[in-house]
Amino acid sequence: MSSDSQRSDAAADVGLLAPGRVGTPVETETGDRAVLQAMLDAEAALARALGAPAGDCTEIEAAARADRFDPRDLAVRARDGGNPVIPLVADLRAAVGDRAAAWVHRGATSQDIMDTALMLIARRARVHLLADLDTTADHLARLAREHRVTPMPGRTLTQHAVPTTFGLKAAGWRQLVLDARDRLASLPLPAQLGGAAGTLAATGPVGLLAAYAEATGLDEPLLPWHVLRTPVAELGAALALVGGALGKIAADVLVLSRTEIGELSEGAGGGSSAMPHKANPVRSALIAAAARQLPQHAATLFSSLVAEDERPAGAWHAEWQTLREALRLAGGAARDAAELTAGLRVHTQRMHEHLDLTEGLIVSERLVAAFEPLVGRREARNLLTRASHAAAAGRLPLEDVLAEQPELRGLLDPADLPGLLDPTRYLGAAPELTDRALGRTPSPPQEDR
Amino acid sequence: MSSDSQRSDAAADVGLLAPGRVGTPVETETGDRAVLQAMLDAEAALARALGAPAGDCTEIEAAARADRFDPRDLAVRARDGGNPVIPLVADLRAAVGDRAAAWVHRGATSQDIMDTALMLIARRARVHLLADLDTTADHLARLAREHRVTPMPGRTLTQHAVPTTFGLKAAGWRQLVLDARDRLASLPLPAQLGGAAGTLAATGPVGLLAAYAEATGLDEPLLPWHVLRTPVAELGAALALVGGALGKIAADVLVLSRTEIGELSEGAGGGSSAMPHKANPVRSALIAAAARQLPQHAATLFSSLVAEDERPAGAWHAEWQTLREALRLAGGAARDAAELTAGLRVHTQRMHEHLDLTEGLIVSERLVAAFEPLVGRREARNLLTRASHAAAAGRLPLEDVLAEQPELRGLLDPADLPGLLDPTRYLGAAPELTDRALGRTPSPPQEDR
Amino acid sequence: MSSDSQRSDAAADVGLLAPGRVGTPVETETGDRAVLQAMLDAEAALARALGAPAGDCTEIEAAARADRFDPRDLAVRARDGGNPVIPLVADLRAAVGDRAAAWVHRGATSQDIMDTALMLIARRARVHLLADLDTTADHLARLAREHRVTPMPGRTLTQHAVPTTFGLKAAGWRQLVLDARDRLASLPLPAQLGGAAGTLAATGPVGLLAAYAEATGLDEPLLPWHVLRTPVAELGAALALVGGALGKIAADVLVLSRTEIGELSEGAGGGSSAMPHKANPVRSALIAAAARQLPQHAATLFSSLVAEDERPAGAWHAEWQTLREALRLAGGAARDAAELTAGLRVHTQRMHEHLDLTEGLIVSERLVAAFEPLVGRREARNLLTRASHAAAAGRLPLEDVLAEQPELRGLLDPADLPGLLDPTRYLGAAPELTDRALGRTPSPPQEDR
Amino acid sequence: MSSDSQRSDAAADVGLLAPGRVGTPVETETGDRAVLQAMLDAEAALARALGAPAGDCTEIEAAARADRFDPRDLAVRARDGGNPVIPLVADLRAAVGDRAAAWVHRGATSQDIMDTALMLIARRARVHLLADLDTTADHLARLAREHRVTPMPGRTLTQHAVPTTFGLKAAGWRQLVLDARDRLASLPLPAQLGGAAGTLAATGPVGLLAAYAEATGLDEPLLPWHVLRTPVAELGAALALVGGALGKIAADVLVLSRTEIGELSEGAGGGSSAMPHKANPVRSALIAAAARQLPQHAATLFSSLVAEDERPAGAWHAEWQTLREALRLAGGAARDAAELTAGLRVHTQRMHEHLDLTEGLIVSERLVAAFEPLVGRREARNLLTRASHAAAAGRLPLEDVLAEQPELRGLLDPADLPGLLDPTRYLGAAPELTDRALGRTPSPPQEDR
Repeated sequence: MSSDSQRSDAAADVGLLAPGRVGTPVETETGDRAVLQAMLDAEAALARALGAPAGDCTEIEAAARADRFDPRDLAVRARDGGNPVIPLVADLRAAVGDRAAAWVHRGATSQDIMDTALMLIARRARVHLLADLDTTADHLARLAREHRVTPMPGRTLTQHAVPTTFGLKAAGWRQLVLDARDRLASLPLPAQLGGAAGTLAATGPVGLLAAYAEATGLDEPLLPWHVLRTPVAELGAALALVGGALGKIAADVLVLSRTEIGELSEGAGGGSSAMPHKANPVRSALIAAAARQLPQHAATLFSSLVAEDERPAGAWHAEWQTLREALRLAGGAARDAAELTAGLRVHTQRMHEHLDLTEGLIVSERLVAAFEPLVGRREARNLLTRASHAAAAGRLPLEDVLAEQPELRGLLDPADLPGLLDPTRYLGAAPELTDRALGRTPSPPQEDR
Repeated sequence: MSSDSQRSDAAADVGLLAPGRVGTPVETETGDRAVLQAMLDAEAALARALGAPAGDCTEIEAAARADRFDPRDLAVRARDGGNPVIPLVADLRAAVGDRAAAWVHRGATSQDIMDTALMLIARRARVHLLADLDTTADHLARLAREHRVTPMPGRTLTQHAVPTTFGLKAAGWRQLVLDARDRLASLPLPAQLGGAAGTLAATGPVGLLAAYAEATGLDEPLLPWHVLRTPVAELGAALALVGGALGKIAADVLVLSRTEIGELSEGAGGGSSAMPHKANPVRSALIAAAARQLPQHAATLFSSLVAEDERPAGAWHAEWQTLREALRLAGGAARDAAELTAGLRVHTQRMHEHLDLTEGLIVSERLVAAFEPLVGRREARNLLTRASHAAAAGRLPLEDVLAEQPELRGLLDPADLPGLLDPTRYLGAAPELTDRALGRTPSPPQEDR
Repeated sequence: MSSDSQRSDAAADVGLLAPGRVGTPVETETGDRAVLQAMLDAEAALARALGAPAGDCTEIEAAARADRFDPRDLAVRARDGGNPVIPLVADLRAAVGDRAAAWVHRGATSQDIMDTALMLIARRARVHLLADLDTTADHLARLAREHRVTPMPGRTLTQHAVPTTFGLKAAGWRQLVLDARDRLASLPLPAQLGGAAGTLAATGPVGLLAAYAEATGLDEPLLPWHVLRTPVAELGAALALVGGALGKIAADVLVLSRTEIGELSEGAGGGSSAMPHKANPVRSALIAAAARQLPQHAATLFSSLVAEDERPAGAWHAEWQTLREALRLAGGAARDAAELTAGLRVHTQRMHEHLDLTEGLIVSERLVAAFEPLVGRREARNLLTRASHAAAAGRLPLEDVLAEQPELRGLLDPADLPGLLDPTRYLGAAPELTDRALGRTPSPPQEDR
Repeated sequence: MSSDSQRSDAAADVGLLAPGRVGTPVETETGDRAVLQAMLDAEAALARALGAPAGDCTEIEAAARADRFDPRDLAVRARDGGNPVIPLVADLRAAVGDRAAAWVHRGATSQDIMDTALMLIARRARVHLLADLDTTADHLARLAREHRVTPMPGRTLTQHAVPTTFGLKAAGWRQLVLDARDRLASLPLPAQLGGAAGTLAATGPVGLLAAYAEATGLDEPLLPWHVLRTPVAELGAALALVGGALGKIAADVLVLSRTEIGELSEGAGGGSSAMPHKANPVRSALIAAAARQLPQHAATLFSSLVAEDERPAGAWHAEWQTLREALRLAGGAARDAAELTAGLRVHTQRMHEHLDLTEGLIVSERLVAAFEPLVGRREARNLLTRASHAAAAGRLPLEDVLAEQPELRGLLDPADLPGLLDPTRYLGAAPELTDRALGRTPSPPQEDR
């Protein structure tokens, strides 16, 4: 092993600090080897789009294989000019004959290749991301259907509020996943070509944009977007949306799998280095970690919209690692969400038991509504507040306290109280809302461009 | 003046630290008075949607006028329950008769009113934002057309690269503005109604969602979105996109109006408290300031997607001020951009002069391409690098240096050099790209819903 | 009421969307009226520092009262030059006689006054912030002492881990509060004076820096810091540290006051607009909301360190509202934390009950250590893992399961099991750590400068 | 090459997208190999601190060498439990004899090892960071001394304001570097040890904290800080401060090396893939890119202060990659800043020429002060404003315009005008401020702990 390679290895990030993403296809599609391949693909596509002779194209394509180049060496040499395309072009030209070399990078600038490569890895990563989001949405649809009428406590500001259903919760999660998925799927991922200052001065006519997009498999841009960074900023936003959608699911699972709550548990809990009994909600924790990082990556990408001149000194460079990391975080979270929702265990008995935890207070809202015609709105509310506190103080069933209220005597048939107090009969429109949400389908899959 | 009002005044933010937004219609639409009105509108719409008797609706609507309530007093009382809807509901009920009071806030929870109110102010602010963005885009279209072939230096990493045109720059700015505008215009801004835990348990059937949306003038949600915060997160992202798009324009104007460059100047420069001669690019500076803040506001809103339970303890509360501030920053930047682009002065003579600043180096790319068939690619590049350095070192015209190059002797007719070296004949496809970009029209305006 | 004042009122933020900060002294110290007073204080201090005649100083000081100026009017006029100092200087000069007017703003630039004013409000706000943090730390010291040996479940990744004490938890909270408090207290808050480009060209010698600092009551800077923004960035960081420290407390209270957990509750829970029984942890929710926003404000202030030239076009302007908002968020959170910790109710019985919730698994770590000498490390761990699962599956006491294990027969006296399994006898060094933490005192209070 | 290794390679980040950090010692100290070594060091230190027999310690230390383990394999296995310590402990135990194995990880939890390892890499990286910051400060001190009286235009809001000196600019840069350096150097980097829930229950008495800190070479914590994350948050803040300080330098160099300005240039400019003549300010661009990312990383770390329970599910995990990336970005920027300032070329002639660019307007402030005693303050300012505009409009020397002003006739000796108008005689206290700033020395170096 050469000293150089050793140094490369020493500096490498192979995922030790990022278990959320390790082993995902998105990780592979966004590693430096894949970035390198994407840069080479961009160069090969350029030659084709420019109409280089078939033989030269073939020669360039044959040479444009990432395993023929050393990413670390390119990274080291990238320091001189500030980007890795400069040394790569030199190596690629050297790897082909002179005639073919004349077609390599012809009329292009480093940014054309870098931006196109980043869109290529985004496009390749997106396939896997969407697949995991779709799988997640499918699992959630199943859970929503299965638990359409499974009652559980609705919780607001950490306290039991009124009952809801687990089906509606799962349907809401799915709604978020589809929101993020559809946004991500809808984004154009354009090829970039503009030459030194975005005028196509050294490449040729405007029509080249379509040819280059075709050759790369990316979308055709209306203009060279070297300093019109909407594609990158919107991608960052969509990935933050993915993180947030999955982060909401994880947040709920983390709450509901607490030792004291136990309404949910992950299919395969994680172990502990100290405590043999632990079954930790690891998938949720890793999703939560990704959701905490993605908004700031999106902020960096939004900031880079402010790109002065025809190529900014810093704003562009700040996008590279940030976008890659955002893809990886979202890709990891999507994989973890697919696993989490595949194996999620729903403890309906615990949910049911918890409905009684507040001794009837969970339906206080309904009782106010029921008593209002009898004693007036204000008195109904006051009465319930008093009765709630009395029940809580004495750990008494609210039913018993209410049956004793002199204000209600003669107005309310005590036999109606059990029904009024039954949390499972106060689910509102939860089942209908679940149906309604399940009627939404993902946007039709992008055709294979 | 009561002691309370004095305290209100003492604490108030009336824009002293935010000149970017002061005096905009967006500021007015998002002030606390406007927020209060929007909360009242939400309450009045709820009564109508619930089918309250016409007389009660009329009574509620008559009472639901922001000038009848004291926003500071509500703010102070909001501390108990953590949101201003709780005291507002008490005051609104007290302001109408008992029968009408029974319809006020019926079946709703604070979040229904707060979220609906925030969407209402967003919708009202958006009208003005889109108008200013459209005005800006129109000014930019005009500039792009006028300067379709106005040559200027393209600059990359702060250095002259190859020529471009001011028309293409303006067309690119417009492209960004339209990207942001179309995203913002496309977002659904839904009403929120779900009751205590999002099940509509105390309000009625699912159909109420449509009725409430209709009554508020907002979009109908598929589900109550109390903890499905896509609408807020996407709004934050769109506003950050607006900030970034306008921030790019400002960044370019700031560069190009530097004392040494002077290719652009703001129509009405700002004065200085110290120096009578200063004409500062104030509009650009204020836009730049907004563009620096918006990404972080978007990050906060993305983070709030992770909203545990049926109402989170903190994530929701963190959205309120953040969203308002984001609307104001974007609204201010849009107004400033409209003013900036209306009055922008383009100094075409300076642009032209600057093309000669590098003594021909600005077309070195073209010369490489021209010499390549004569001496080969590598030698062409080496020759130009040598000649560039010699020209720079001696402050000599590149033409003279090149005419002396022994390698080119006999290969190149010296009479061709002036043409090759004329920057105004190396604009590439800039004019055609400008035309292409101008062909894009904004998405059709949203109908008045 | 003039039409202008109406518009001012319409645009004002009086706290309706920010209940966390409403009514705090920090809010008052940072309102636009207070900012205006601070700008006037800076102007008056400048005249004194410059050695203006006593009569002129007196005249300027008499005029420099915020209630004589209209902040909204200044805000509107600030748009021209991009900052409110320019119109304020005009008004202040007009408010005094010509001789005194000659001393107003003499040699200064807008930034001198604005930056000094922001440091003044920061200094005034800091007094209250530190007071609330000290109060909070005192309450936490009391709780830590009172609950020095109160056992409760330690929780990791949401699951019961091993026992801890509430005293140690409170001591840890206090540690965080002191960390943030000491950082905030230690920051220099310097006056700013440099003139148009930071050279003091129009004011006088370097010694003026000390005189001006003295006159303002702020720290003396080593250099004019117009573009050396460490003071602002460090202030933002310290405020984010405050938010994070208090946010940790709030996060724990939110978890521990969940309906199912109930180990803590806020002294005065907040009500609900829908449910009469709710007692929400409102103080914690508002603190949590502040903690979610402050990191992004700190990020904006860090970004503004990158301030080009002798006064940047945007980076500086982005600080004003951001710093004010950060002060307010931290100030609100500190007040809420003082209230929260003053009234926090600790339900030791619930804590105790929860130690048994896992039927002994909470001390599995200890059992591994105890069994290791008997059966070896690996087998001890395996045995506990098997027994844990068996106990969990059968909802059996771990003691019973263990007593049945053939591997331990003869090795372990069953009479030792109850002691080994007693969670209250597995508190480790929690009490000693609590003592150790309580030995830390806050940095000595800043002398009244 | 095994299929596993191939996958590792495919996913690896070896710096292709991060030229700013490639090849720095900080990169090596923070690579996954180094993180792994640090985790092993933490385990070895624990055995020593626990008082394991010397032979066992030796055995563990001999085994605890990163090159004996496969970081990618550990990363893959980290997914189960959510952190890499769990598989590492298994491997390390397997690599030593049974007796020594019993001392491996004894009483510790994964977080103890991970947090200690992160502090170890921070400490190792900090050595290099401080060295580069000190080198940078030394270069800046030299520049400040050399250019103590080198006049140049002061620029505010992009426009020439009044003269300043390059020495004062360099002294200000140094001040920022020292601010950041001193903050970073002052931070305690504590070892972490607490066991499963921070009570030291399975390890032993409080005194172990000192022994463990001693064994690791890190600072002794007052308390286990598993959920008291000040050390990490403050580190993030200090690194953002480094980024901002260096980012300010880069921003100024980028402005001043613009083609039209050319007052500075980087010693070794970067080339271009398209244009042979380009000499780009690459070091500055890469520093600027780092400065854009660091504030958001700091925000993520601030957010992770809100760490619920005794180990949070997500907040902790979000720190790992974020902290590493922040160290790398700051480390890269510090190296680039050292190179940039070592080679920075100062074109004093251009600076001098630019002072005349505004035909005298650059001293308008001084003229107002000079004319004020003659014609009154208001008239002096008005006169200058008029004269400035006339000079600008006619491209006339301000001296000529002023000599013609009837208001000044008889009041001003025209022979005084040249002196008043000489920008090099209006440097204010710039040289004295430079001296004053150079008097500051870095905080004494941390002893080698």
